[in-house]
Amino acid sequence: MNRISGILTPHLTPVDDHGRVDEDRLRGYIDWLIERGVDGLYPNGSTGEFVRFTAAERRRIVEVVVDQTAGRVPVLAGAAEANVKETIAACDAYGEMGVRAVAIVAPFYYRLSAEGVYAYFREIADTVSVDVTLYNIPLFASPIDVPTVIRLASECPRVVGIKDSTGDLPTMMRMIAAIRPMREDFAFLTGWDASLALMLIAGADGGTNATSGVVPELTRAIHRAVVAGEIDDAMRLQYQLLPMFDVMLGLGEFPEGFRAGARSRGWNLGPGRVPLSAQQREAIAKTQQEIDALVNKVTQQSVPKDGARCDLPVDTLEQIVQRILKQL
Amino acid sequence: MNRISGILTPHLTPVDDHGRVDEDRLRGYIDWLIERGVDGLYPNGSTGEFVRFTAAERRRIVEVVVDQTAGRVPVLAGAAEANVKETIAACDAYGEMGVRAVAIVAPFYYRLSAEGVYAYFREIADTVSVDVTLYNIPLFASPIDVPTVIRLASECPRVVGIKDSTGDLPTMMRMIAAIRPMREDFAFLTGWDASLALMLIAGADGGTNATSGVVPELTRAIHRAVVAGEIDDAMRLQYQLLPMFDVMLGLGEFPEGFRAGARSRGWNLGPGRVPLSAQQREAIAKTQQEIDALVNKVTQQSVPKDGARCDLPVDTLEQIVQRILKQL
Amino acid sequence: MNRISGILTPHLTPVDDHGRVDEDRLRGYIDWLIERGVDGLYPNGSTGEFVRFTAAERRRIVEVVVDQTAGRVPVLAGAAEANVKETIAACDAYGEMGVRAVAIVAPFYYRLSAEGVYAYFREIADTVSVDVTLYNIPLFASPIDVPTVIRLASECPRVVGIKDSTGDLPTMMRMIAAIRPMREDFAFLTGWDASLALMLIAGADGGTNATSGVVPELTRAIHRAVVAGEIDDAMRLQYQLLPMFDVMLGLGEFPEGFRAGARSRGWNLGPGRVPLSAQQREAIAKTQQEIDALVNKVTQQSVPKDGARCDLPVDTLEQIVQRILKQL
Amino acid sequence: MNRISGILTPHLTPVDDHGRVDEDRLRGYIDWLIERGVDGLYPNGSTGEFVRFTAAERRRIVEVVVDQTAGRVPVLAGAAEANVKETIAACDAYGEMGVRAVAIVAPFYYRLSAEGVYAYFREIADTVSVDVTLYNIPLFASPIDVPTVIRLASECPRVVGIKDSTGDLPTMMRMIAAIRPMREDFAFLTGWDASLALMLIAGADGGTNATSGVVPELTRAIHRAVVAGEIDDAMRLQYQLLPMFDVMLGLGEFPEGFRAGARSRGWNLGPGRVPLSAQQREAIAKTQQEIDALVNKVTQQSVPKDGARCDLPVDTLEQIVQRILKQL
Repeated sequence: MNRISGILTPHLTPVDDHGRVDEDRLRGYIDWLIERGVDGLYPNGSTGEFVRFTAAERRRIVEVVVDQTAGRVPVLAGAAEANVKETIAACDAYGEMGVRAVAIVAPFYYRLSAEGVYAYFREIADTVSVDVTLYNIPLFASPIDVPTVIRLASECPRVVGIKDSTGDLPTMMRMIAAIRPMREDFAFLTGWDASLALMLIAGADGGTNATSGVVPELTRAIHRAVVAGEIDDAMRLQYQLLPMFDVMLGLGEFPEGFRAGARSRGWNLGPGRVPLSAQQREAIAKTQQEIDALVNKVTQQSVPKDGARCDLPVDTLEQIVQRILKQL
Repeated sequence: MNRISGILTPHLTPVDDHGRVDEDRLRGYIDWLIERGVDGLYPNGSTGEFVRFTAAERRRIVEVVVDQTAGRVPVLAGAAEANVKETIAACDAYGEMGVRAVAIVAPFYYRLSAEGVYAYFREIADTVSVDVTLYNIPLFASPIDVPTVIRLASECPRVVGIKDSTGDLPTMMRMIAAIRPMREDFAFLTGWDASLALMLIAGADGGTNATSGVVPELTRAIHRAVVAGEIDDAMRLQYQLLPMFDVMLGLGEFPEGFRAGARSRGWNLGPGRVPLSAQQREAIAKTQQEIDALVNKVTQQSVPKDGARCDLPVDTLEQIVQRILKQL
Repeated sequence: MNRISGILTPHLTPVDDHGRVDEDRLRGYIDWLIERGVDGLYPNGSTGEFVRFTAAERRRIVEVVVDQTAGRVPVLAGAAEANVKETIAACDAYGEMGVRAVAIVAPFYYRLSAEGVYAYFREIADTVSVDVTLYNIPLFASPIDVPTVIRLASECPRVVGIKDSTGDLPTMMRMIAAIRPMREDFAFLTGWDASLALMLIAGADGGTNATSGVVPELTRAIHRAVVAGEIDDAMRLQYQLLPMFDVMLGLGEFPEGFRAGARSRGWNLGPGRVPLSAQQREAIAKTQQEIDALVNKVTQQSVPKDGARCDLPVDTLEQIVQRILKQL
Repeated sequence: MNRISGILTPHLTPVDDHGRVDEDRLRGYIDWLIERGVDGLYPNGSTGEFVRFTAAERRRIVEVVVDQTAGRVPVLAGAAEANVKETIAACDAYGEMGVRAVAIVAPFYYRLSAEGVYAYFREIADTVSVDVTLYNIPLFASPIDVPTVIRLASECPRVVGIKDSTGDLPTMMRMIAAIRPMREDFAFLTGWDASLALMLIAGADGGTNATSGVVPELTRAIHRAVVAGEIDDAMRLQYQLLPMFDVMLGLGEFPEGFRAGARSRGWNLGPGRVPLSAQQREAIAKTQQEIDALVNKVTQQSVPKDGARCDLPVDTLEQIVQRILKQL
């Protein structure tokens, strides 16, 4: 048994001034993340804007990440391509590069039925020579419903986990209750940072969380606290993570808020690949200081396990929450 | 400070063969619930089918519950009527009867804006002479969004809590983060049984859960386990509660599945007030045995606090989960 | 065959300064509507805020409307009450008063399944001694899906029509295609004013439209134009109706915008029964002039059938549309 | 002024037994469509499964279509690529090939805000040297709301039309009311076949309809009837189109039902690029005869403009509608 677990970072893709993938910066950022304790790397996830890069760029990104990681942590490579044939080719290529597993988002653009989603993953799982994790994110792609996950887990040894970004706790529990007894090696990962601690408490093995690319110390501390049974600590840290996630998620187009978060840590990863209006660029500039403050508070105070409480003033927290919620 | 907490049961309303409220059975059922440890009673909730009774019947139901309870546990009385004036009159009448607080569901049928929801609760809170809890159930009624809850908690001392039936953990955390620092007396209750244990772990004070009318021992045990910091126990019990909730929620029209659950405990509370088709009646009859089995397992094994594990065979649980999920 | 047809007005319910039903004003308003050519009256519809009045008030409202109408036009009385038994009693009472038919909205608050919706209407249709129309408004109540409408039309002679407020043209066409061949007497009415002309062109028999309580001349003209095969005229008038509907629908809480519209015609029907915040009251006051202008333009120019074109300046129309749409 | 109008066919992409684009068959199919009177061709639309082909394949498809069309009808080429830079390159390439315009679907996978959608189209429209049409299909991609369409129409001369696949008539009317007065050259096209006739009656210029790849005679007849003011004819034909659209849309994964429809016309365009489960393949095989019957009826009887009525028996039509609707 070698179940995937811990916090795997679906990292941003650095681009240079010409809009090209900035490989040097990517290598530096990967090192920085590993040094701060992430348990794995996840190139070509939603945070990595995989759909906004070409097939050739996506392949090169995985190549660079695997090379730079050099086995220090496992790599979970996003491998969804335009169609099943191309996806299978990417899976096998990544397998040969040495990734721990690939992550395949359900078909998007078209909304497939449960049968169609099943047929898609079944064909991939029966063909590839690398472990596969399912990626369920109904906000963006066809939903992978619970009976379909159970069906695939029952029939496909190559399917070794699911990353679920619904954030719905009972759904996660239904999957764990049905699959864990028959598949010791099957990993349950959450992609919804707002629920991270609670997902882990409910039995999930880890998370693939965009915030871990900004405050890897904090997401790691949450994971370690739950593993150690220190639930109060885990929840205290989760209460720090939540407003950061809300602010970064609500800022401009996804994942621009997380680029702003990376800037707070000193990482200028470029402008992303989605055009922004003047109004959006202003909003991001205005919010940068606030994100800086949130990030600084968290990295200075909560991460040392000396038990220090977050002393972000309550009124500030409340104001931030109120303002953000108004925009949702 | 006298914050509402624990498990308050939104109980079914017994009806007799003529479709009238069966007051004798209601009194007996109330006694049974109190004996099994519920922390409060909640007449005229959604489970009580409040909208299917007349204004006069609703008032009589509260009268009977308050009388029979006789101060043994607090009563939280559903008091929503056709309009603000009638609602205020009901609130004051229930206050004089001695209820701990009233629960007011957001306006339904029409979907009001956040401003309209605010104006509605503000007018009630400024007028009544009884404590008020907000009842947020966007599936059925206008949503009460987080900024509106914060606004009402800030401005209205009479508003002493919220029952949230969204089941969304981060939403609950956002409310707690914003309101707890300024209102020690404000109670956070969850109405979504599927998330009960996790809501309590996240800081909620209690729940108003339909399943507590069927297995009050189990919901009580979950609450007590979290309070005692026995998180593993709480989650183990929550994994038992989840399939029961799923089965009862998915059966016929709400709350008929919970009537079936009560029958498993020996309580024939009558047919409810929603007409069922022949097909629906058959489905309920067929599922009764399965609900009996689930209820018996839980009440025989998990409730005694001797630490006995639920020995419901994993394959049965899995089969039930799979079948139920297919119907969702 | 006596199929319901034309424009039946779901009229506002006037209230006096004490919040009571203003019967005198109701009688005057009914006369005014009939004089301006409405084909029927529809008390206790959504526009009449039926859920915000008590059962006794609802019954009195129908009584007054029937009495004042005195057979000049048919009355379609909203008859939904708290439960099936009460609803049936109201139906029979309205039947004895002489209404042409009752309108029963699908069960609301709870979202019933198609089977549950069927069982509800079947029980009513099998029991009452008055013609029944189904009222489908999924925004507010359980949806009545097309197969259920077909099933009820096939089995229940008492069900003589449907008022559909979805505004979805293909859905209306599917119902007409399936039911018209077997039920000559079955009426298809639309409650979505934005689609009125097109619904009539697609084969609907009429409409129950809130705007007909403000500009009865215009909705009548649209209906008569389609009947006469003057499709260009009908569409020209529909293009006038649309921004009025959008403005009135988007203003404050429904149906406050339509109260503002009635004020433009000289009818002060009171404040409605939903509390409004200060901010909402201001918004309505600010928009009153704009509604006055829209109403005046329409009533002065489009109604005379002399073919005069609406000369509302294009830029104004555009500005209104843009502003309104931003609020949706 | 050279406004795009009529029925432009978003055609299926033929693939051979090896899953490659079948260029010969594509050329033959294009000829067949033009011979049957389509007003234009639309390669790389949703029906063409553009997301399931590689960038190189998409470019080749347009090349073949433009070459084979040889100016007989205009080509509207789907040009959305992974990001703005690639999209602009595709637009310019297609412009040089001689297409009438490109069609750009709003960004998909991520759901962009209105500001983000605006920024995306603005950057494209300001850069390319070919006319651009917006493609709004909120079911699959970020919605382009009405104010954004108005904004782009006001600011960007290169934006010459919108294809709207919402099927919402009032939305179409709002756009026409706001844009037509300022942009004589701006085309309004509907992609929702179920509303085709009514959209044209409401003022739309044409349609890009998947059914036109199966029964081009019928969609052409609908368009011509509306242009000629023969509204009764148009609606009679629309009532024939509707159940065909419903059946083909509801069958398997989109656009497999339309492939089945093409087979009814003698065109075996291959299996598509979405894997189907055994259950889905059986369902398609079973429904083929029914689609054959529907297609044959329509092509034999309604198309000749001799006014013959569709004699598809009413009960059959009803049965089909009922069965299909149960599956929705």
